[in-house]
Amino acid sequence: MRVFGIDPGSERTGYGCVETDGRRHRLVTCGAIASSAGDSFPARLARIHRELLARLSECRPELVVVENVFYASNARSALKLGHARGVAILAAVEAGCEVREYTPAEVKRAVVGYGRADKRQVQQMIKLLLGLEKAPRPHDAADALAVAICHVHSGHALRGARHEPRDSHRVAQTAKTLKSWRQYRPAH
Amino acid sequence: MRVFGIDPGSERTGYGCVETDGRRHRLVTCGAIASSAGDSFPARLARIHRELLARLSECRPELVVVENVFYASNARSALKLGHARGVAILAAVEAGCEVREYTPAEVKRAVVGYGRADKRQVQQMIKLLLGLEKAPRPHDAADALAVAICHVHSGHALRGARHEPRDSHRVAQTAKTLKSWRQYRPAH
Repeated sequence: MRVFGIDPGSERTGYGCVETDGRRHRLVTCGAIASSAGDSFPARLARIHRELLARLSECRPELVVVENVFYASNARSALKLGHARGVAILAAVEAGCEVREYTPAEVKRAVVGYGRADKRQVQQMIKLLLGLEKAPRPHDAADALAVAICHVHSGHALRGARHEPRDSHRVAQTAKTLKSWRQYRPAH
Repeated sequence: MRVFGIDPGSERTGYGCVETDGRRHRLVTCGAIASSAGDSFPARLARIHRELLARLSECRPELVVVENVFYASNARSALKLGHARGVAILAAVEAGCEVREYTPAEVKRAVVGYGRADKRQVQQMIKLLLGLEKAPRPHDAADALAVAICHVHSGHALRGARHEPRDSHRVAQTAKTLKSWRQYRPAH
């Protein structure tokens, strides 16, 4: 099953697709759509939509997961972020995908093990979970992969594909995640 | 010249197109895209985008004007509104139109004569300006027409098409607007 994660932003929108059987995840693609300084705001939105639609038609995921927010530093920044989320969600609908949403805290809890992890910790955990040689960059790409993996870890995906009961799988997965994380942690 | 106005909202998005020579305006079309109660949020966004794109391809306006906001009651409602604005602006870009934005206060000032006019006053003034028998309904449609007419009244449109200097035209237009408004006002 392929899950496509999006971390929307008007300056930079991260995306990342993983293929998963519920236990092991493989990186399909990841990256970030950066807006050009000379682009008008409408042109930026059009670029985000166009590029996401192109990546979605290449990856053909079953599901798109978008990072959600319920707060923002102020209404103006929330409004701006809303525009980017709007065209990202539209691209997912146009690609025929179902859309799921998770908050940043849910994503961090599901991927790193606790909800206040920082960006570097998310990058390192994504590197471990996907067996990559380097952590994905920029951090928007890692965040988007984390959003996708969050959905798989949260137990809502792949119920049919799993051979273990859901909870024992989740406990095993979290234990594994925390162990990997502790192995990484002594470095600092 | 045809100008297409949009008043975006996640529940209901008003639209209205006027044909204008800078002085007289003619209604081309107006209406509102209402979301179905059963629609998911992604489905609502897709409907707004699809319907606007259809209206834009029928009307073929030179310009799209979108109501802007710089404040909202809270970040959450700003975020929601941002989604609707995002897909509306995207539809305009995809239809090959330039996009302009005005705040609600600018729209009311340009159309009714003062920035704190209420919805009914905007509806009545749109009726007068477009020579309609009834005020456009719902108010979202009237608001969208007001956004379009605001652009024409603000003097940024039709510079080449006008035979008078910009300021004298604007003064005459405002005087006419206020006169019409006073004629309407005694009713309450």
